[in-house]
Amino acid sequence: MSADGITLDQANKVIAAARKRANKIKVMMNIAVVDAGNNLTAFAKMDNAWQGSIDIAQGKAYSARAFDMSTKDLGAASLPDGPLFGINASNDGKIIIFAGGIPLKDAEGNVVGAIGVSGGSVEQDQDVAEAGVAAFA
Amino acid sequence: MSADGITLDQANKVIAAARKRANKIKVMMNIAVVDAGNNLTAFAKMDNAWQGSIDIAQGKAYSARAFDMSTKDLGAASLPDGPLFGINASNDGKIIIFAGGIPLKDAEGNVVGAIGVSGGSVEQDQDVAEAGVAAFA
Amino acid sequence: MSADGITLDQANKVIAAARKRANKIKVMMNIAVVDAGNNLTAFAKMDNAWQGSIDIAQGKAYSARAFDMSTKDLGAASLPDGPLFGINASNDGKIIIFAGGIPLKDAEGNVVGAIGVSGGSVEQDQDVAEAGVAAFA
Amino acid sequence: MSADGITLDQANKVIAAARKRANKIKVMMNIAVVDAGNNLTAFAKMDNAWQGSIDIAQGKAYSARAFDMSTKDLGAASLPDGPLFGINASNDGKIIIFAGGIPLKDAEGNVVGAIGVSGGSVEQDQDVAEAGVAAFA
Repeated sequence: MSADGITLDQANKVIAAARKRANKIKVMMNIAVVDAGNNLTAFAKMDNAWQGSIDIAQGKAYSARAFDMSTKDLGAASLPDGPLFGINASNDGKIIIFAGGIPLKDAEGNVVGAIGVSGGSVEQDQDVAEAGVAAFA
Repeated sequence: MSADGITLDQANKVIAAARKRANKIKVMMNIAVVDAGNNLTAFAKMDNAWQGSIDIAQGKAYSARAFDMSTKDLGAASLPDGPLFGINASNDGKIIIFAGGIPLKDAEGNVVGAIGVSGGSVEQDQDVAEAGVAAFA
Repeated sequence: MSADGITLDQANKVIAAARKRANKIKVMMNIAVVDAGNNLTAFAKMDNAWQGSIDIAQGKAYSARAFDMSTKDLGAASLPDGPLFGINASNDGKIIIFAGGIPLKDAEGNVVGAIGVSGGSVEQDQDVAEAGVAAFA
Repeated sequence: MSADGITLDQANKVIAAARKRANKIKVMMNIAVVDAGNNLTAFAKMDNAWQGSIDIAQGKAYSARAFDMSTKDLGAASLPDGPLFGINASNDGKIIIFAGGIPLKDAEGNVVGAIGVSGGSVEQDQDVAEAGVAAFA
């Protein structure tokens, strides 16, 4: 384990698993992994994936680590009636509040990084992010 | 009293009290105190507190001093029907409109600074901010 | 070949070669590859590489594709007497004018992307970037 | 040790030592400490310290961790003839290249955070930052 949390080798393994899943469901994705300090560790833009999702994938990974919860849960908490309504205006606009970002935890449950996926529907993004998480667990 | 309103010693006392309360309710918080001029005076990120809340805690303190009201009240006033609807788009996006930011007043009722807390639910943030205010009063 | 120029597989091959060279000279690097459209395609932060170089590696790749020349040549052209003096103030501050960024060209000489490396001295960055280019040629 | 590197208690100890030194040389300082992930951990603005240095103190701490070297060394490397000339234009303008920022290392030599001091001459800033580092070592 790197002092920064997740290592590059681990991050690449997470991306490879996510990419495999994305190929299976035939949706080209952008996939980002940040480390414990919320710094970009690895990134992959699959061929012809949406260019506009390069930023969103990174934002989802950032958001999942910033609040140690999936962006799906963060989105639910950010609804007009929710406890975190308005949170996406914080952190210089880097917060993304729809599914596709998930924290990566070590065996003790400590958050050591996060994955962010963007390029399809939110259900597809979430599906591919979960495949990445499964490869890390 | 510093010309800037609250002193660093007073700000640290406010943070210490807020931190004590946060430890009691077992939620790791980011706690910021600004002075009368709305400049950051003291800040503490409790171990493993949400990284994304570093910005929000400062934003809450800033917002509470910017409008001399709690961010809880500011949030209520910012609802679509409220008198301040849209205010969170002002001030370069630094305004936060959910609970956890409270002005700090001296014995004469003058606002000399503000505290902002972020890291838990808004109820928890508000609870911890109130503990900080109580230590100042 | 992707419509975007370099493919993800090719970009990963470039990064793998650069990473191998970085390991050989024992300097932990951040390595970025952009495609023909100057969009981030792949990125790797080697364990404990400078965090501040995450941005610079991407800036070098961006700059090399933006002007279709190495950032080393761009730097020389940007000196006070040079034809491009002041160019680093353009493009929202994303232009980097020291060595470590090199365009990636296909067999016909068309620029299809670029690599950017940051984490060591400029000589080391350039050395590692050249190793990445060699793996693509 | 927190998963984030330096703990809040350690950061406060660093700030207390720096503040003691600042009082001794009679210069009011802004003092910031970031953790291993380069996130703000603790901050103190001494009474009547320059408001414009709030941002610079944080920038110095950020820069020292971003490149794992003192901002004094970073400044020397950033001179027109130096290997890192122009680096202060990277990282969204957050890089500061004059003395007062120093990495904080654990017993094994790993960088676990950084201190940034601003409010006096660069010699004074450096002096106070060194007092903070001494309290951590």
